[in-house]
Amino acid sequence: MSKTLEFYFDFASPTTYLAHKRLQQLREQYDLIIEYKPMLLGGVFKATGNTTPVAIPAKGKYMLESDLPRFCKRYNVELKLNPHFPVNTLTLMRIAVGAREMDCFEAYLDAAFDAMWLAGENMGDVEVISRCLTNKDLDAQALLELTQQPEVKAALIAATEEAVARGCFGAPTLFMDGEMYFGQDRLDFIEEALGQA
Amino acid sequence: MSKTLEFYFDFASPTTYLAHKRLQQLREQYDLIIEYKPMLLGGVFKATGNTTPVAIPAKGKYMLESDLPRFCKRYNVELKLNPHFPVNTLTLMRIAVGAREMDCFEAYLDAAFDAMWLAGENMGDVEVISRCLTNKDLDAQALLELTQQPEVKAALIAATEEAVARGCFGAPTLFMDGEMYFGQDRLDFIEEALGQA
Repeated sequence: MSKTLEFYFDFASPTTYLAHKRLQQLREQYDLIIEYKPMLLGGVFKATGNTTPVAIPAKGKYMLESDLPRFCKRYNVELKLNPHFPVNTLTLMRIAVGAREMDCFEAYLDAAFDAMWLAGENMGDVEVISRCLTNKDLDAQALLELTQQPEVKAALIAATEEAVARGCFGAPTLFMDGEMYFGQDRLDFIEEALGQA
Repeated sequence: MSKTLEFYFDFASPTTYLAHKRLQQLREQYDLIIEYKPMLLGGVFKATGNTTPVAIPAKGKYMLESDLPRFCKRYNVELKLNPHFPVNTLTLMRIAVGAREMDCFEAYLDAAFDAMWLAGENMGDVEVISRCLTNKDLDAQALLELTQQPEVKAALIAATEEAVARGCFGAPTLFMDGEMYFGQDRLDFIEEALGQA
């Protein structure tokens, strides 16, 4: 029987990129449905009083220089640190909310994640977003127009509030079988649960 | 060939307790020497700008109610949350520094860790410390007297500064083969390295 995993994400987070790539591997191995749940990580931090790990220089150095490379090797996933990090992802996350029901949604996810964490693009900049999406044969103009719709703006706020109400304090946060998991480094517990299904 | 693992610890941290217990399992399986390195976690936090995860209520709730129990089950380790948490461990850590060269050092480690994370004792209280150590046939008076020695006080400060200088920002922090690992949840990487030795 399929299991459904809810994946609360924001493109801003390199560990979320790692989880996104690793989950695609798990989806090939197991009967897994991934439900992508956009949220604005900055809003989650503000609501919970949390901060990015890189706000603590020693923690950021360890995370970016030691810990992430170890997991990239373990998962066989390529990740390049973004020179523009931290990037404001408000526009990207609004597109994600607005495009959830569109055919291009998964292609958009890959395009935005890869532009951020493989190509090092400044994805807080609308011109850069437009170029990167167009290069992936996505309708950049239509997707960017979504971000100006009041209902899309409101939907991202509501999605972020819902994440916080469910206990989310950072990204990635995953829910499966009524259990919450925080961090790409907990995907082994999810894999255990998938293996027992 | 033996590998030496440096284990920077403070009794204040439940994840450090979990690491302590898990490392004892690994020491039975592999040719591993554990070098216990006391530090004052509060001093590390102050020096690095870091805080305990439980300072963020949503993070603390997840850590204590979901994440720690998962690892307790995985490692087959019993842990009970301490009702006095967070406990001021200045006295305990001074004893740890002062007693490092004494025969009773490992017995002291077990006594202090278990009093904190199995018995729920208020180990910030000197009377409680005295009772708990005496119950484990340790010379509580001699150990507590160590904490008044200026060289012991200075040694804990120096040990904490050394930890910070090496990149430590929390507990547990582990070093092996020139690599730093943060968190009980990275012991699988250490086990991988031990298995390849």
